[in-house]
Amino acid sequence: MTEVHRTALEISFRHCDPAGIVFYPRYAEMINDVVEHWFKHGLGCDFATLHGPRAIAIPVVKLQIDFKNPGFLGETLEAGLVVSRLGTSSLSLDITMRGQGAAQATDLKLVANLTVVFVDMGGKKAIEIPADLRAALERYRSDERYELARTP
Amino acid sequence: MTEVHRTALEISFRHCDPAGIVFYPRYAEMINDVVEHWFKHGLGCDFATLHGPRAIAIPVVKLQIDFKNPGFLGETLEAGLVVSRLGTSSLSLDITMRGQGAAQATDLKLVANLTVVFVDMGGKKAIEIPADLRAALERYRSDERYELARTP
Amino acid sequence: MTEVHRTALEISFRHCDPAGIVFYPRYAEMINDVVEHWFKHGLGCDFATLHGPRAIAIPVVKLQIDFKNPGFLGETLEAGLVVSRLGTSSLSLDITMRGQGAAQATDLKLVANLTVVFVDMGGKKAIEIPADLRAALERYRSDERYELARTP
Amino acid sequence: MTEVHRTALEISFRHCDPAGIVFYPRYAEMINDVVEHWFKHGLGCDFATLHGPRAIAIPVVKLQIDFKNPGFLGETLEAGLVVSRLGTSSLSLDITMRGQGAAQATDLKLVANLTVVFVDMGGKKAIEIPADLRAALERYRSDERYELARTP
Repeated sequence: MTEVHRTALEISFRHCDPAGIVFYPRYAEMINDVVEHWFKHGLGCDFATLHGPRAIAIPVVKLQIDFKNPGFLGETLEAGLVVSRLGTSSLSLDITMRGQGAAQATDLKLVANLTVVFVDMGGKKAIEIPADLRAALERYRSDERYELARTP
Repeated sequence: MTEVHRTALEISFRHCDPAGIVFYPRYAEMINDVVEHWFKHGLGCDFATLHGPRAIAIPVVKLQIDFKNPGFLGETLEAGLVVSRLGTSSLSLDITMRGQGAAQATDLKLVANLTVVFVDMGGKKAIEIPADLRAALERYRSDERYELARTP
Repeated sequence: MTEVHRTALEISFRHCDPAGIVFYPRYAEMINDVVEHWFKHGLGCDFATLHGPRAIAIPVVKLQIDFKNPGFLGETLEAGLVVSRLGTSSLSLDITMRGQGAAQATDLKLVANLTVVFVDMGGKKAIEIPADLRAALERYRSDERYELARTP
Repeated sequence: MTEVHRTALEISFRHCDPAGIVFYPRYAEMINDVVEHWFKHGLGCDFATLHGPRAIAIPVVKLQIDFKNPGFLGETLEAGLVVSRLGTSSLSLDITMRGQGAAQATDLKLVANLTVVFVDMGGKKAIEIPADLRAALERYRSDERYELARTP
C-alpha cells in the first residue's frame, strides 16, 4: 500500500499578489516546503543533515505544475506527496494541494510533478540514492499513473 | 519572422541557496520578471496598467520547467521569450535562459513553458485577449516546436 | 500581567543564503508571519478577515532589527511578541526570536521593533484602532522597556 | 566630496502584496540588491568574488527602516547609498529610495540604516575591512548626520 505524505500549509500574506491570490512562484516555494517536510518527517533525514553531514544536494531537474483553482489568503491547504518514479539516482514526486473548506473534495489547487537528482556536493556528480533513504522512499512509491492524480 | 523578446537577468544573492546555486522557486520568480518585462517593453502594456486601469489578470494555469545546468551567483543570463501557442483567451510562452560566459552556446540554464489565461478581474471570468494585445503578440509567435527550443 | 504571544518557526531551506545562514530579508518575512499568527491566534482576527471584510490594512511605518546570532538551516525558533506602545491609530511591537537548542537561554537570534498604522483600505487614511481589536491588544501590552528586551 | 551610489529599481509584481503596495520584506530584499549593486559597480568587488575567492561574508547586524510613503506596482525608484560610519571591521550605510515621478522631490519611500560586519567565512570571526575595499569605501563616506537624510 502506498503511503501518502501529508503536509498542512497555510496561505499567508507573503504568498499573495496584488490580484489577491497566491503568486505562482510562492507555490514553487511551498512545493519545496513539502519536500523538505517529507525528508524530515517522512524519510527521517532533515535538510540540515542532508546538506550538512551527508553533503548531498537534491537539485530539481524538472518541475511541472498544473494550477487548477486559485488559492486565497487565509486558506488552509493539505499537500499530498507520493513517489511516482524511483530511479538509480533520481526520483519523481507527484504533489497535490487541496483546500480544506466546505468544497474540499473538489477544491484542488494544483497537481505538480517534480524530478530531483541526488548529487554529491563535493564531486558535483550524481550518486546512487543512499540505501537508507531508498528503503524509506519505498513506502511512498505509487503505482498509480500521474494522470489519475489529475482527476479532481 | 518570429521576434524573440530578450531580457537580461543577473543572478543575485537573493536567488541563491545554501548549495550556492539558484533556488528553483527563484527561477519561477525570474520567469515572472521576464513576462512582466515583455508586457512592458515588448507589448507596450505594463503590469500596472494591465492590473490597474485595464483590470485584467493573467493567472498561470500551467508551468513546466526543465532545468539544464545550475545557475551560480554573479552570472548574467539572457532570457528569450516567444509565443508558442495563441488561443482565444490563453497563450503559451516558451522561455529559455542562457548564461553569457565563454561557454554561452551550450550554457542553457532552463527551458520553460508557461500558459496564462486572460481574466477579467471584476467578473473573474476568462475573456478574449484584447485586440491591441493580440496584435502586439503576433510578432512573437513562433512556428517552431517546443522540442526544438530544447536543443541543445 | 503582560501576555507574550508565542509562535514557533522553523528555519527552512528557502530562508537560507549561500553563506548557509538565514538571509536577513527572510527574517523580515518571518516577522510578518509572527504578526499574522498573532492577529489570527492572539487577537482573533485573521489577515483574510482584516484585509477582506474589514477592509483594514496595517502598513509598517518603522522596522528595526538587531541581529544577535546567525540562524542556521534546521533550527527551530520561538518568537515572542508584546505590544510596546499603543497609540490611537498605531502600535509598536517588540518581537524576539530565540533558538530552542541546548544553549537556548543565550541563543537570541534577533530583537525587533515594528510600528504599524491602521489604515482604511477605501479612504487610504489612518483610522482609530477598532474597539474589539484594542481590547484584545491590551493583554499583550508590555510596560517593560525595549532596552530590557535586548538583554542579554 | 561624498559620492552617492545610485541604483535604479523597478517595483515589480513580485514585490507587491494584496493591498497593492510593496510588501515590506521585499524592501529588505531591495536594500540587499542596492548593497550588492554597490559592491559590484561602486567598490569593484562583486558578491561572487567576495563570497567565493575572497571568502568574506558581510552579515547584517542592525537594520532600521523608516517607511515614508507606500510604493506602488510599476514605479521606478532611485536608491542612494552613502557610508555613514566606517569602523575597523564594520560599517553603516544610509540608504534612501525615492520615486521618480512628477512628485519626485517629495516622493521619499524609505530611509534605511544598515550595519554590516566583515567576517572571515572560514574562521567565522570578524576581520578588519581589507585595505582595497576600505580605500574604495572612503569616497562614499558621508559626514552628514543620519537625521539629515530623513528630511524629505
